[in-house]
Amino acid sequence: MTEVVRNFGAAVRQLREAQAWSQEQLAEHAGLNRSYIGEIERGRVTASIITVHKLARALDVPMAELLQPEPVTGPG
Amino acid sequence: MTEVVRNFGAAVRQLREAQAWSQEQLAEHAGLNRSYIGEIERGRVTASIITVHKLARALDVPMAELLQPEPVTGPG
Repeated sequence: MTEVVRNFGAAVRQLREAQAWSQEQLAEHAGLNRSYIGEIERGRVTASIITVHKLARALDVPMAELLQPEPVTGPG
Repeated sequence: MTEVVRNFGAAVRQLREAQAWSQEQLAEHAGLNRSYIGEIERGRVTASIITVHKLARALDVPMAELLQPEPVTGPG
């Protein structure tokens, strides 16, 4: 699993949880499949730029926010 | 062809040309296939985040630079 894929999954999870959304709710907002969201967050699948765009739009963040070099880690 | 794919292709071409590289040279630096670079620039294929990472590293820009909402257009 490459670092890019893992970091992307962590960023999606972090931003989803910041919205207090379930994977189901994010899937619905993004027009994606719930199980696919789970696989993305676990770094099991490699997303395309179209998927990045759908997730960024659903989470209301720029695409760049999901592709930080390092995931935005919380305090501590 | 979605706007995201078209904008990504335009950004790759613009940054490649700014380096005065041929598609061949970019392909070599990124460890990708020359014809694939051509298809990306024409918006014919949807890149994965791993491809975005390879191209960003080769062009020495953050991944975000390749995924701007609108491609950075030159003067005029």
